[in-house]
Amino acid sequence: MTHWTLAARAAKMNPSVIREILKVTERPGIISFAGGLPSPQTFPVAEFEAACAKVLKDDPAGALQYAASEGYGPLREMVAENLGKQSAAAGMPWKVDPAQVLITTGSQQGLDLVAKILIDAGSKVLVESPTYLGAVMAFMPMEPNVVSVASDDNGVEIEDLRAKSDGARFLYVLPNFQNPTGRTMSEARRAALSAEAARSGLPLMEDNPYGDLWFDQAPAAPLTARNPEGGIYLGSFSKVLAPGLRMGFMVAPKAVYPKLLQAKQAADLHSPGFNQRMIFEVMQNGFLDRHVPTIRALYKAQRDAMLQALAQHFPATSNPDDTLTWNTPAGGMFLWARLPKGMNAVDLLPHAVDKGVAFVPGAPFYADHGDTRTMRLSFVTPSVEEIHRGVAALAAAIHAQRS
Amino acid sequence: MTHWTLAARAAKMNPSVIREILKVTERPGIISFAGGLPSPQTFPVAEFEAACAKVLKDDPAGALQYAASEGYGPLREMVAENLGKQSAAAGMPWKVDPAQVLITTGSQQGLDLVAKILIDAGSKVLVESPTYLGAVMAFMPMEPNVVSVASDDNGVEIEDLRAKSDGARFLYVLPNFQNPTGRTMSEARRAALSAEAARSGLPLMEDNPYGDLWFDQAPAAPLTARNPEGGIYLGSFSKVLAPGLRMGFMVAPKAVYPKLLQAKQAADLHSPGFNQRMIFEVMQNGFLDRHVPTIRALYKAQRDAMLQALAQHFPATSNPDDTLTWNTPAGGMFLWARLPKGMNAVDLLPHAVDKGVAFVPGAPFYADHGDTRTMRLSFVTPSVEEIHRGVAALAAAIHAQRS
Repeated sequence: MTHWTLAARAAKMNPSVIREILKVTERPGIISFAGGLPSPQTFPVAEFEAACAKVLKDDPAGALQYAASEGYGPLREMVAENLGKQSAAAGMPWKVDPAQVLITTGSQQGLDLVAKILIDAGSKVLVESPTYLGAVMAFMPMEPNVVSVASDDNGVEIEDLRAKSDGARFLYVLPNFQNPTGRTMSEARRAALSAEAARSGLPLMEDNPYGDLWFDQAPAAPLTARNPEGGIYLGSFSKVLAPGLRMGFMVAPKAVYPKLLQAKQAADLHSPGFNQRMIFEVMQNGFLDRHVPTIRALYKAQRDAMLQALAQHFPATSNPDDTLTWNTPAGGMFLWARLPKGMNAVDLLPHAVDKGVAFVPGAPFYADHGDTRTMRLSFVTPSVEEIHRGVAALAAAIHAQRS
Repeated sequence: MTHWTLAARAAKMNPSVIREILKVTERPGIISFAGGLPSPQTFPVAEFEAACAKVLKDDPAGALQYAASEGYGPLREMVAENLGKQSAAAGMPWKVDPAQVLITTGSQQGLDLVAKILIDAGSKVLVESPTYLGAVMAFMPMEPNVVSVASDDNGVEIEDLRAKSDGARFLYVLPNFQNPTGRTMSEARRAALSAEAARSGLPLMEDNPYGDLWFDQAPAAPLTARNPEGGIYLGSFSKVLAPGLRMGFMVAPKAVYPKLLQAKQAADLHSPGFNQRMIFEVMQNGFLDRHVPTIRALYKAQRDAMLQALAQHFPATSNPDDTLTWNTPAGGMFLWARLPKGMNAVDLLPHAVDKGVAFVPGAPFYADHGDTRTMRLSFVTPSVEEIHRGVAALAAAIHAQRS
């Protein structure tokens, strides 16, 4: 009999609560507001086809051989240049050195690498309330003490941050169209957070997978642009090109880059050189400047459909505790809603699925006590027509439960 | 001033010694026996082109979307079937359930996942002597106590294993054409090792990236086939197709599969679905049965050239301490050589590079005290003509140092 002894950290690793919840929603015909999947109609398939052919014609040996752990040089340069341009456009020049760019196997890997080099067992790690569950899952194997910072519609509240930041290894923050809430940090809050982090010496871990998906105006400049030595910036190609290539990147200061690189080398040697070249080829000649506006327009129309359907089925009441309430995300993929007082999103879910619609309960996104009335609604996967039907089904489920 | 506090484990993470050594060898015109790179002429470029086009035509949304952490179903089934066939051909039936297959981002990631779920700080982990340095680098962030088991030309010595296995989390072993030595474990040694592991309850971590690259006859059946519940098997597509897609796999028993899957999900969500489909498409209709023999023939001819050149430049002497000695790998990519007494491979390297040839000193591959006379010579990257010139240059460097 083989004696398998698991590491203590394995006990901290659990199946995603959301994944388990989603299992009940996997029935044919269910309209899903639950997934976090980009709309496949936004995938630039023809451009990928052309890129594949070009990469395999121009440099098959380079694309198919072992490569540097840092990533493909021209892609690192392009990432640096694009970040610089975006920040300048947002009024905050950020000169990114390509040497500080590390290409990762999806931005999820960036979270894993950060956890490995910055978290000891018991280390305090600060997160927003609620926060992206995938980040917490990446941190957990390193056994941190995850502490929630009180947050409002603008992100973390500075006063609570100040009270909790002593000894924290970093604050993990998703300033643009956050997963799960869809909220965005204002310029004023960013300035205040950046100043407070500088004052206390707290490193910031800025995750920005959705920043390009703004609807009416680009969000304020990244936190990392304000103090490049004080934070790590995580980016992704998943939402503007496609997730199935698993390509992301991080920008890290010299204080931590070498250790991140060593962790990367030990984790998977390097991200697929073939995929890095595909992404680089597709992004040539300003492709994203033409492509991303089409994604924005699509998602904005779907957000609008969801807002319209919600307003139709849940008229405003004098007391917000009496009905479903929701926010108006200015970009991204998610909307955050809250059930009437006395209702619980986990309890509601099976009834909603019976009516033909699925969502993700919000409580699991909180590192501490979750608000059990909350839910995350994705508006990017279903069509406008499905959004209307799905919201009607959600309303029917809520009304049935309340009556 | 930002206070970056690194995790304690970060101190255990260091740049690859070999990578640092190789920097001195990166000069134009140097014949390199140092790399571990498959010959790019073995990459099936036309087949990859066709596979890319097919995948993007048949199921672009599936290939480019987020996907299951376990991997692409048809590829998992194909892996299971191939392992079953190979083991049966080696006289050891192994019925692999596709549900036990986890697709990884290169087999290096398999090592990272194993480390995460099985190693606590201070855990004893057993390795061969010498062993694959990339495995030790994957284990180190989890802070194991890595202990070398005495090894001979057949791999680990059972008596020493018995003396050291108490309390060990696992034995990491690379039975076929090992990196760095090129040695292969005999059927008798495998049987003895399997019996000893079963007796003591020691889990085996079997890494098999080179097993398909045999020259005259297939190696004996995998250790894991002898006791599937007692080990984890790591495989790779890097040596039979191409490393640049970063595709590998692991087969794990039910006792550990769920934790490996959770670690995988936290590490990078899933390996690129596009790459998984490319590999699957290329492997359709028994492609490897036609392709791999061409790799074997190429590498065998290059091994023969190296053996011939070595024999020519280093005639046998009555005392093996008086000259360079080497083994005769039965497959794979590497040959292991040992310098005359009094010489040191690290000291020799710059002189060899001056003469126009590079190799990797063997000492860094030992987890304990390395044999400083050893070196690893790769015969797969240079051509036959370059192998002859390179060995001549090596001989010139050695003779110059001895005189």
